[in-house]
Amino acid sequence: MKSISYIDRFDESYRNSFSFSHRIKIRFSETDMFGHMNNTAPFTYFEDGRIEFFKKIGIMQAWMSSNGEKIPVVADIQCDFIQQGFFDEEITLCVKINRIGTSSVDLHYLGINQNRESLFVGRGTVVQISKHSGKSVPWSEEEKKRMLQLEEPENL
Amino acid sequence: MKSISYIDRFDESYRNSFSFSHRIKIRFSETDMFGHMNNTAPFTYFEDGRIEFFKKIGIMQAWMSSNGEKIPVVADIQCDFIQQGFFDEEITLCVKINRIGTSSVDLHYLGINQNRESLFVGRGTVVQISKHSGKSVPWSEEEKKRMLQLEEPENL
Amino acid sequence: MKSISYIDRFDESYRNSFSFSHRIKIRFSETDMFGHMNNTAPFTYFEDGRIEFFKKIGIMQAWMSSNGEKIPVVADIQCDFIQQGFFDEEITLCVKINRIGTSSVDLHYLGINQNRESLFVGRGTVVQISKHSGKSVPWSEEEKKRMLQLEEPENL
Amino acid sequence: MKSISYIDRFDESYRNSFSFSHRIKIRFSETDMFGHMNNTAPFTYFEDGRIEFFKKIGIMQAWMSSNGEKIPVVADIQCDFIQQGFFDEEITLCVKINRIGTSSVDLHYLGINQNRESLFVGRGTVVQISKHSGKSVPWSEEEKKRMLQLEEPENL
Repeated sequence: MKSISYIDRFDESYRNSFSFSHRIKIRFSETDMFGHMNNTAPFTYFEDGRIEFFKKIGIMQAWMSSNGEKIPVVADIQCDFIQQGFFDEEITLCVKINRIGTSSVDLHYLGINQNRESLFVGRGTVVQISKHSGKSVPWSEEEKKRMLQLEEPENL
Repeated sequence: MKSISYIDRFDESYRNSFSFSHRIKIRFSETDMFGHMNNTAPFTYFEDGRIEFFKKIGIMQAWMSSNGEKIPVVADIQCDFIQQGFFDEEITLCVKINRIGTSSVDLHYLGINQNRESLFVGRGTVVQISKHSGKSVPWSEEEKKRMLQLEEPENL
Repeated sequence: MKSISYIDRFDESYRNSFSFSHRIKIRFSETDMFGHMNNTAPFTYFEDGRIEFFKKIGIMQAWMSSNGEKIPVVADIQCDFIQQGFFDEEITLCVKINRIGTSSVDLHYLGINQNRESLFVGRGTVVQISKHSGKSVPWSEEEKKRMLQLEEPENL
Repeated sequence: MKSISYIDRFDESYRNSFSFSHRIKIRFSETDMFGHMNNTAPFTYFEDGRIEFFKKIGIMQAWMSSNGEKIPVVADIQCDFIQQGFFDEEITLCVKINRIGTSSVDLHYLGINQNRESLFVGRGTVVQISKHSGKSVPWSEEEKKRMLQLEEPENL
C-alpha cells in the first residue's frame, strides 16, 4: 500500500476510522483530455464534504449568517492520488477531524468509489478568522464541544 | 456559413465589427474526456472578456468598489459552437456592445483561434442592479457616454 | 412573468411539461464575490442533467463505450436567469426534449429551488457526430424510439 | 514567516531560486462568496504553470502527440496559503524542479502578486505513466537532460 506522510498506516482500519461521509459523482466537466478525473476535482469534493461535515456538527450556520464576522479559510490542503477516477463514478467522500487547534482544525479526507476502492486521500487545515481583521479567532467552548461530539464510526 | 439567430450575416464583416479583444488560452482542465474544450468553458471566457471590456471603457471600477451598491448581473447568455476548441489553443476573445438599454447592455462575443478560425460566438444581456434591493438601476449619462465612446474597429 | 424567446408561455403548465429531473446542490466554489451562484454554473448543471437524461432513456451508454465512434457535442446552449441562486440551494434540474432532428436533439432545461421558485431556464442543441470525421451522424430508428418513449409528466 | 514542511527556509533566497514563471490573473469565477480567491483555484494555476514549464524544457510535446503512449499524472499535490488572493490580481506563478526520480519529478510552485507578496506556495509529484497499462515509465536520458538544463534564476 502507498505510504502517505500524514497517515500512520493506510489500511482498512484507517478507512474505518471515518464516521462521516458525503456522496459525490465525478462530473463529465471534471474529466480532462487524458480521459480521467482532472487532478483539481478532489479539492472541490473536499470543500463540499467539509461543508456538509461542518453543517452536521453544527458550526457552519454561524459562518453563513449575513452578519457573520467569522469565516473559515483553508490554510493548507493536499491530495494523494491512489488510483485514477473516471466519469460517472460515485464517490463516498469521507471526512474526519484529525486534530483540533486553538483556532484551527486539521481534517482528513478519503474518496472511495462504488467498488470500495480508495481513489484519493487528503488532509488540510481550516482556520477560523475574522472577516474584517483577517486574524485568527479561537474556537468557543461550544464549538470545540461540537467538534468532539463525533458519532461512532459507521460502516462506510 | 452557420446561421445564428442574433447575427445578421456571420461573415468577415461581422468579425471586423469588433474593436475590443482579450487573449485567453484553453486550459488543460477545461478539456474533457472527449478530447476537446468542454462546452462550459466559453462562458468563463465571456466573463473574462466582458470584465476586461468594462474595465477598458471605465465602468467596472464603480462595481468593484467595496462600498459599491450597484453590481452587474447576467440576465441571459448563450453560445453557438462553430468548431471544436482544443487544449492550448490561443483564443482572441472579441467583445462588443450590440445594444444599450435603460439599465442593461446586450453584448456580442466571438472567439477566434490562432489560425483566424471562428470557434464560437455568443451574446448575452448584462443588467445593472442594486445589490440590496435586487432591482435594476438605470445607467447614468456618464456610463452611457462611456459605452458609446468606442474606438474604431481594429484589425483583429 | 419574464418573456423567453424559446418558450411559448413560461407558466405553471410549462413547468409541468417536464417529466425528468435531477437533483443538484449549488456548491460553495460555484458562488462568486457578489455572493451568489456564478453565471457559469448552470451550464455544468445542464450537462449533468442532460447526461442523466440520456442515461435514463438509454442512449448514453453507446457514447461512453471505449470503442465508441459516435459522441454527442453541444452545438449551442443558452441560459435565462430568472432569479439569483445562492450557496447550498437544492436545485431540481428538469430536462425535456423539445424537438428531434435528423442527427440532433433540442433540449429544454429548468432549474427550480426548494421553494419551487424558478431560478433559471435554458435550451440547447446536441448533435451526434463521428469522433473521427467530426461529421454529424443521423439517429438510428432505435435511438429515435427511445427519445420518443417519454413517460407522463411527473409532479415536480 | 510561515513554516512550510517542504521548504527549508521560506525567505527571499527561496523566492529567488525559481528560474521559470508564468503569468495568470485571478478570474472573477474563481472567487467565492467570501470575496476572495477560492482555495481550489491555485491547483488550476499549478497545472497551467507546470504545462508551460514542461513545454519550455521540451518534454510536453511527446505527451500531447496523438499516438502518445506516455502521459504525466499527478501523484500528489498540495498548497499552503500565505495570504488571501483577490479578483483581478496578477499572479506570477513560479515553477521549479525540486527532485528528479526514476519516472517522477517533484515540482515546487510559488504564487506572487503584483506587489511582490507571496500568496501561496505548493509542491507535488508528477509521474510519467503508460496510458494503457497505467504503470510508471522511467525517464529517458534525453528527458532527464532536458530537466537538468535549467537556466540561471532570473530576477522574478
